[in-house]
Amino acid sequence: MKESWSSLDTFEPNFRPLVVIELAKSTKEETREWLTRRIMDKKANGGAQLLVKPLVTENGDQNIYLVGASHFRLLLGAESVGLVKECTDNSMRTFTYSSRKTFKDFADDNHNFLTMAECQYIIKHELENLRAKDEKIIPGYPQAKLYPGKSIVRRLLTSGILVQIFPLHDQEELKKLRHTWYGRVKIGYQPLDEIRCYFGETIALYFGFLEYFTFALIPMAVIGIPYYVFAWEDYDKYVMFATFNLLWSTVILEVWKRLCAVMTYRWGTLLMKRQFEEPRPGFHGVLGINPVTGREEPVYSSIRRQLRIYLVSLPFVCLCLYFSLYVMMIYFDLEQWALDYHKENESNFSSLMLFVPSIIYAIVIEIMNRIYRYAAEFLTSWENHRLESSYQNHLILKVLVFNFLNCFASLFYIAFVLFDMKLLRQSLATLLITSQILNQFAEAFLPYWLQKRHKRRMKKKMYSQKTDTDLSLVEQVNLEKEMGTYFGTFDDYLELFLQFGYVSLFSCVYPLAAVFAVLNNITEIYSDALKMCRVYKRPFAEPTANIGVWQLAFETMSVISVVTNCILIGMSPQVNALFPDSKMDLILTVAFVEHMLLAMKFVMAFVIPDKPRDIQIKLARLEFESLEALKQQ
Amino acid sequence: MKESWSSLDTFEPNFRPLVVIELAKSTKEETREWLTRRIMDKKANGGAQLLVKPLVTENGDQNIYLVGASHFRLLLGAESVGLVKECTDNSMRTFTYSSRKTFKDFADDNHNFLTMAECQYIIKHELENLRAKDEKIIPGYPQAKLYPGKSIVRRLLTSGILVQIFPLHDQEELKKLRHTWYGRVKIGYQPLDEIRCYFGETIALYFGFLEYFTFALIPMAVIGIPYYVFAWEDYDKYVMFATFNLLWSTVILEVWKRLCAVMTYRWGTLLMKRQFEEPRPGFHGVLGINPVTGREEPVYSSIRRQLRIYLVSLPFVCLCLYFSLYVMMIYFDLEQWALDYHKENESNFSSLMLFVPSIIYAIVIEIMNRIYRYAAEFLTSWENHRLESSYQNHLILKVLVFNFLNCFASLFYIAFVLFDMKLLRQSLATLLITSQILNQFAEAFLPYWLQKRHKRRMKKKMYSQKTDTDLSLVEQVNLEKEMGTYFGTFDDYLELFLQFGYVSLFSCVYPLAAVFAVLNNITEIYSDALKMCRVYKRPFAEPTANIGVWQLAFETMSVISVVTNCILIGMSPQVNALFPDSKMDLILTVAFVEHMLLAMKFVMAFVIPDKPRDIQIKLARLEFESLEALKQQ
Repeated sequence: MKESWSSLDTFEPNFRPLVVIELAKSTKEETREWLTRRIMDKKANGGAQLLVKPLVTENGDQNIYLVGASHFRLLLGAESVGLVKECTDNSMRTFTYSSRKTFKDFADDNHNFLTMAECQYIIKHELENLRAKDEKIIPGYPQAKLYPGKSIVRRLLTSGILVQIFPLHDQEELKKLRHTWYGRVKIGYQPLDEIRCYFGETIALYFGFLEYFTFALIPMAVIGIPYYVFAWEDYDKYVMFATFNLLWSTVILEVWKRLCAVMTYRWGTLLMKRQFEEPRPGFHGVLGINPVTGREEPVYSSIRRQLRIYLVSLPFVCLCLYFSLYVMMIYFDLEQWALDYHKENESNFSSLMLFVPSIIYAIVIEIMNRIYRYAAEFLTSWENHRLESSYQNHLILKVLVFNFLNCFASLFYIAFVLFDMKLLRQSLATLLITSQILNQFAEAFLPYWLQKRHKRRMKKKMYSQKTDTDLSLVEQVNLEKEMGTYFGTFDDYLELFLQFGYVSLFSCVYPLAAVFAVLNNITEIYSDALKMCRVYKRPFAEPTANIGVWQLAFETMSVISVVTNCILIGMSPQVNALFPDSKMDLILTVAFVEHMLLAMKFVMAFVIPDKPRDIQIKLARLEFESLEALKQQ
Repeated sequence: MKESWSSLDTFEPNFRPLVVIELAKSTKEETREWLTRRIMDKKANGGAQLLVKPLVTENGDQNIYLVGASHFRLLLGAESVGLVKECTDNSMRTFTYSSRKTFKDFADDNHNFLTMAECQYIIKHELENLRAKDEKIIPGYPQAKLYPGKSIVRRLLTSGILVQIFPLHDQEELKKLRHTWYGRVKIGYQPLDEIRCYFGETIALYFGFLEYFTFALIPMAVIGIPYYVFAWEDYDKYVMFATFNLLWSTVILEVWKRLCAVMTYRWGTLLMKRQFEEPRPGFHGVLGINPVTGREEPVYSSIRRQLRIYLVSLPFVCLCLYFSLYVMMIYFDLEQWALDYHKENESNFSSLMLFVPSIIYAIVIEIMNRIYRYAAEFLTSWENHRLESSYQNHLILKVLVFNFLNCFASLFYIAFVLFDMKLLRQSLATLLITSQILNQFAEAFLPYWLQKRHKRRMKKKMYSQKTDTDLSLVEQVNLEKEMGTYFGTFDDYLELFLQFGYVSLFSCVYPLAAVFAVLNNITEIYSDALKMCRVYKRPFAEPTANIGVWQLAFETMSVISVVTNCILIGMSPQVNALFPDSKMDLILTVAFVEHMLLAMKFVMAFVIPDKPRDIQIKLARLEFESLEALKQQ
């Protein structure tokens, strides 16, 4: 086995474990041997040329492997994934091994040139791109078919031989990060660059957005407080607040794009070239020729997928929406019942009862959202999308539409059918606060507690009470492989998206919403940080240049909020008093103002450049250089 | 002089003149010699390595030069401008000299591999990229300063030494093109591929859009005719028509994007890489360092430009808009006066008089549009934009806003302030028809007639009455250099844009507008074709992948038309009859429907892919190949 290593790899003095591969316990010896050989094989022979060591646990099982790579191999990998790093002249450039000397902090013996998260990302990329050559099956598993070019790791995953691949935590680094991030009570920014180094760009960008969004909400919250303190209960004072809100929400979303560009430029992901997307692991079909690559791979007719989407998924989603509206009507019956009860026997208890339907409804909404989430995942997976990105887009669309209706339909109904502003305010407050409490609990504290309990048990089993940093590698791997898996930022963004809806859609009836949102987000930062650092397995870093489809979702929400706020303002007694004679003039004026605001929004989005001028110049310079280089050829 | 040519160039057997350079008559001998030497100099010496021959006219003047190039030189030029051509395997690829054998129709002796328009474009590109080396001034003109890297041709143009550069017509090809294009009466498509070969992509795309737009209007026109024939004068029948109109205008704009992608893929421009943009000829400033290229070039502070835009241009545009509204009010006074006159002394003459104010106003609008056009050009040029594209965008924005208000303000006023549907219909008809007649006259027939007269005189002077194809080169150059210059497709698109406004904004009160638009466009195709072939100098081909900012302009117009049509429908007696009790319900319903339509428009624009599936696959394949090629390196 060892002969096939390059001499450089063989004499790697200190093997640093980066990624853990856990195979099923029953995996055949022949399969293990084949897999490790393929991983260690030279690139020229179609291998990944990485280092693999089995981890022998106490009970002698050999189903866990540690993967690492030589420094030289990692640098080559950095080139092949197209990492962008800072040069000595402060410009950002795509890393190539031949130009390595021009990069900042590069030295042949500086093993910190690539962050650990980057190394792990490279190894993941290399493992996923380990492809079958002439193997027709996975050795030992005749039912697990392979064809030339099929990703071995993906086939192992789908046939259940590979349980999971995950990157190892770096206890020392993590301790440092935890300390600067949430270890001490302080007012200030999060250490986004450190988070990015440890968890990668996608997660750092989420925390960056969460922080930015919280700061952006503060002015709204500050303006909202006097409304509560001075009990400006009559909502005609809220006109000014709503107007401010409209302009503000447009501005913050535009400014975020610029900040995001600054951050991702610094991190290098703004410049990273998009890689060619391989089919997602779950994709299946008849073996055919991909028209793009000309390679053999499963092919699934686009028409059949469209049929599944439009004949099954779409009706199902509509049915769910209808069901959600049905539940809403039940809520209103309950509400009516509580009101009648309160009228009949007025007491402290009965006035508390007034809130019960809203709370129940909020809980039911959360439960429905979660159940629907599973259904949406199942359906989208069944639609059999070829690409992960298209799968994600269809899933996000399904979930967003349902969550939007589920959370806000009752508020729309109260506002624009019942015209009951008191009830609207009460519902909004209950929904917002209940969902925040539920989320914080379900998302961080519950898993944290479970994790803590599990850890205590594990440690007891190992007859030791060491602190995290003293754990042996075996203990660390055993602990981490049992931790929950973080499934990406989807749920976190969704939560923010719904919160943005609560804050902006009906801002003028409940200005305190922004205050609650700010308070929630401050704890959210801490609980999410806790979740990332202590509850879940370390996730693989994922380079990304922006928050993607969420930008569009937030902007759509802010367009909808222009419409709802204009209607609410039009309904306010203050504005009504301006048009004592004619309701018609009022409505026409409101409609006119609304159209002007919408037009202004689009003009603003058009006029404010998405990237700051200095970033634009830097990007133009790089483009110019590459054009010049092409000419030189 | 000749020593510096490459041996290949010297023995070029047949010099084919492609481009004409006309210098000022007074140009000094020393300048002429320097210029020709620089043009003919080898690339390695900083020259353009083209062929130049002076054209000696009867009176012995030597201020006209013919420029050509060897076949080999043109192929190298095709590589440097990044032309995309079809390969033998039917894929489109960027042409490189080394891979020339893989391209369809390529043979070392096939001089038609590049079309004449492409050759001329290459020569223009090479001439414009002929840059000063260490010359500090243009020899013979100490006031015309140069600096390293400055385009010589641009400096010659701005200092008046160079009168013009234009490509020569190919009389034989032109005759063929004229015949297939408009020479015979036939029903069918225009020969777009031939137009593209002769005039380049920008002009072919304009004619493609004109043709597409005309076809797209036919359903509207066909539905509009019965309204006229059966005299459905009461405009409540128009609701259906307007609804159809709304959906139709969204669909046609989306479908155009797809058709455009198909066309420009076939032409290769969809794949052409954007070249780095040099400053436009008129740009001036203090010599500084461009932060993008690091080269010495004039620099003009962005803040000063912003100041000029916001403190001078913006107020001026607003003033013009105000003036246009003022003129509109005068028109309404005139209209009132004509109405009064008609009432007092009713006669045939007085009923004819009713149309006079509209006709006068239409003429005034046209005149104002043209004057404003010059002012806008002057202002935008004074704003001193560095790039031609940014100059064009600012110019188009200025002109569009003014033209929109100037043409449609009176109609908006009549529709939504006076609520006079009869007058609206009459005004719309008069404005549309008058502007069409004026345009056709001013754009094609007048220049054609002038050109014809000039040609006759020229021929008389040369004592010969030959047909075009028999003209000697000297005669041809002398004729063509006096022809008018075609300033691009701006005015042509603007005309279509305003026509689209007349057809879509108030479609429900005057369904016949589409009929007139179709009739106008059919003659427009012929008169524009005539204009291109016989009136103007041949323009340089300009590669382009889409209709650019006009797509946005047309889409904006179609959004505005949703709003206006919804309001008109809401005002119709038919819809009013549905809400006998409450005006308020009516308005709310209309507003709701309008928002739904707008939302539907955006969803449709999002759902319909901009490129057909097969083009997407072809593009993906190319991208995949280039990624693979990068990996191989």
